Amino acid sequence: MGADGRHEIAPRSGVAFTLGRGERLTVIDPCGEQVADLLAFNRHDTDEVLSSGRTLDYASRIYLTTGDPLYSNRSNVLLRIVEDTVGRHDFLLTPCSADTFRIIYGDAHPHRGCFGNLAAALAPYGIAPDRIPVAFNCFMNVPVDGATGAFHVAPPLSRAGDHITFEAEIDLVIGLTACSALQSNNGSFKPIHYRIAPAA
Amino acid sequence: MGADGRHEIAPRSGVAFTLGRGERLTVIDPCGEQVADLLAFNRHDTDEVLSSGRTLDYASRIYLTTGDPLYSNRSNVLLRIVEDTVGRHDFLLTPCSADTFRIIYGDAHPHRGCFGNLAAALAPYGIAPDRIPVAFNCFMNVPVDGATGAFHVAPPLSRAGDHITFEAEIDLVIGLTACSALQSNNGSFKPIHYRIAPAA
Repeated sequence: MGADGRHEIAPRSGVAFTLGRGERLTVIDPCGEQVADLLAFNRHDTDEVLSSGRTLDYASRIYLTTGDPLYSNRSNVLLRIVEDTVGRHDFLLTPCSADTFRIIYGDAHPHRGCFGNLAAALAPYGIAPDRIPVAFNCFMNVPVDGATGAFHVAPPLSRAGDHITFEAEIDLVIGLTACSALQSNNGSFKPIHYRIAPAA
Repeated sequence: MGADGRHEIAPRSGVAFTLGRGERLTVIDPCGEQVADLLAFNRHDTDEVLSSGRTLDYASRIYLTTGDPLYSNRSNVLLRIVEDTVGRHDFLLTPCSADTFRIIYGDAHPHRGCFGNLAAALAPYGIAPDRIPVAFNCFMNVPVDGATGAFHVAPPLSRAGDHITFEAEIDLVIGLTACSALQSNNGSFKPIHYRIAPAA
């Protein structure tokens, strides 16, 4: 941990940690154009998990930003976005995985991706790989063509030092990565920083 | 079951059944403008389930139609769309639920919705409510504004007799509803028909 309370997630890796009710998690892109996949589980019952389908339904928007709540599969608010210097994140796509690299990139010996990194980091909390849903992909830029429904993965809009801050509404287990997919990060793999602030 | 092998799902209800590898499921909108939420689980290991995030990622499109595969959370193809007379379905939103009606419609005594209907129908297969992900919402029309990310639930484009047909790539448990949300069905609740054809 750095002097200012920052933790670093190395390129193409991931971590898991607990976040208490009222605590704030700030996810920082230290170099710019780097995605961080975020998952959240109810710490006291990890069958309750972040749900893109419920969150988008209640927001009536696919792009979320400051003020928007992130709901669970039981329609409880897990996190709320309280600051956001970027304003473009993705909540449509699952974490990249060995399958992503095999199917989309055609890699013969694929990296385990954010999915594998999250699975390894969440295992000590008793969370199985099958329980990993669509992540909230901080800084991931996926413009959708409304007419055709086609989308593509564009370079993130985040610049060095940009951040997004979430406040926990219940006690959580968080999974967080420095994303492993070339396309999502404009062709290079960089670290992600994060900081936890106590409840007000 | 009707003389032509059609089953009927009554308005605001749901069913579950098995679908064998190679069998074809046709979902029919008999009256027009009626949505049917579809779920699919690996029959031999129900922790493997339909994944919107993986399917959309591999398709690079939010609107799916004939030829498109529907993937599981383990990146296996569960179903493939082999016929589609409508061409507009939704794969962003979770099944409507008591929470949907409470949060979006403000109902004091909400209906259990497609979520409750699916949970009840899937219980005999040992599938818990927490395992219900984003459904493939046949005939649901959710236009997205690409610039702002805003979307709304518009009347389905399906007319009486329109259908979509899926072929099973592995043995499945299917959940299927006649959707219970007013907005999704242009203000009225109608039945859904379905038919199963044997493997070729």
